[in-house]
Amino acid sequence: MSNDSRTQITRLLSPAELEAALRDIGAQRYHNRHPFHQLLHAGKLSKGQLQAWALNRFYYQSRIPMKDAGLMSRTSDPDLRREWIRRISDHDGAGPDTGGIERWLRLTSGLGLDTEYVMSETGILAATKFAVDAYVRYVREQSLLQAVASSLTELFAATLIQERVAAMLANYAYVDKKILSYFDARLTQAPQDSSFALAYCQKHAVTVAQQQDVLDALYFKCDVLWAQLDALHGAYVSPGHVPPGAFIPGTDNK
Amino acid sequence: MSNDSRTQITRLLSPAELEAALRDIGAQRYHNRHPFHQLLHAGKLSKGQLQAWALNRFYYQSRIPMKDAGLMSRTSDPDLRREWIRRISDHDGAGPDTGGIERWLRLTSGLGLDTEYVMSETGILAATKFAVDAYVRYVREQSLLQAVASSLTELFAATLIQERVAAMLANYAYVDKKILSYFDARLTQAPQDSSFALAYCQKHAVTVAQQQDVLDALYFKCDVLWAQLDALHGAYVSPGHVPPGAFIPGTDNK
Repeated sequence: MSNDSRTQITRLLSPAELEAALRDIGAQRYHNRHPFHQLLHAGKLSKGQLQAWALNRFYYQSRIPMKDAGLMSRTSDPDLRREWIRRISDHDGAGPDTGGIERWLRLTSGLGLDTEYVMSETGILAATKFAVDAYVRYVREQSLLQAVASSLTELFAATLIQERVAAMLANYAYVDKKILSYFDARLTQAPQDSSFALAYCQKHAVTVAQQQDVLDALYFKCDVLWAQLDALHGAYVSPGHVPPGAFIPGTDNK
Repeated sequence: MSNDSRTQITRLLSPAELEAALRDIGAQRYHNRHPFHQLLHAGKLSKGQLQAWALNRFYYQSRIPMKDAGLMSRTSDPDLRREWIRRISDHDGAGPDTGGIERWLRLTSGLGLDTEYVMSETGILAATKFAVDAYVRYVREQSLLQAVASSLTELFAATLIQERVAAMLANYAYVDKKILSYFDARLTQAPQDSSFALAYCQKHAVTVAQQQDVLDALYFKCDVLWAQLDALHGAYVSPGHVPPGAFIPGTDNK
């Protein structure tokens, strides 16, 4: 299979075949394969580059509950909403000092970034915003099935997170377990979320066209994640052209 | 003030003046003044008419969490989302047998309607759907301030509910407290919700135009509630023209 060929199905897949096709997409397209992540995990990023990564990823974190609320706003099924609402609570927490967004801010703060600067969203790459906003819009506008399916990158998240935490602790002296607490919670949340979403897609994609929609939604989401790392790589690694207005490592960014 | 004149402000109101202007709108336009509610509370509706009311109002209940999720999908402020998420939990509950929607189904069932028929949403008046869907869309598409402000009919809900519960228990032999449990919960939820929304609007409407938006949002929402009762009145009271496909009291509605 060449780099740009996508799976096109021509017959209805069994639930197990659908899962295999989804996992195959992950094996080819999930952002664990991106060069930026490989540099990150190999301990080859400067502190400024790590800051740029954590800063831009904050924008993604901040939009996830909006994306999930967008999905909930589309279904009149209380069962689906009751399942999905946990994702919002996981990110927002019960109060200002809990939840995934707050834990991500512990990472940006632990890496030396001013929290107010991070939350101001100035300094975020425009390409990050375009990719993330496209995801939020996709979930609002495509079919409910595609909206659910676009979350399926979580099938691959736990493995990546385990690898990342070990690599970051081993390779960056200024990184400790405390500032990586975001990832601890995701290790249990992501598999719970992805199990539900996978079962939902297996149950509700009952035509070839719907199964193709599920696959295409995962392709789309892989693109969303990949494009964010492309933008980071281009701005901060190679060629290292920081766009106007974006975060510049080692300055006060005023 | 004539029936159709709306408050148009020409200077910035104090928080207390804004609240007074909102309460004035409620006094003129809230649906407690609708003839259908007056018949309901006076014990003058037939069981079939009560069924039609509860059936159509189910559609409104079913869309409220979608409306609230739509609002949450529009804000990147975790504080606002953390406050608003309770409204969804209140309606959906923690499991299939809890929450406001389920309690509303106890009312429709207690009035003799088949729950499956109610949930199928066939038999709901088209005008009910148009009004409710317009509300969901309004919250998604207008400003966040207007979205919050459109919930402010809850300022007037507790009084109406107290009146309604007493009147229904007094005037309809087949109504008991158990099937009215939806309203018990709303007696504490509505004031909590409306206090927050009012304070939010007082804080965030800082220009004359924004304060006018807040007032207009409440006018809009009053129209949404009123139009639902107009439709019920026209179909089931006077002239009593049930539109094609809608619920017909006393038949099996297949």
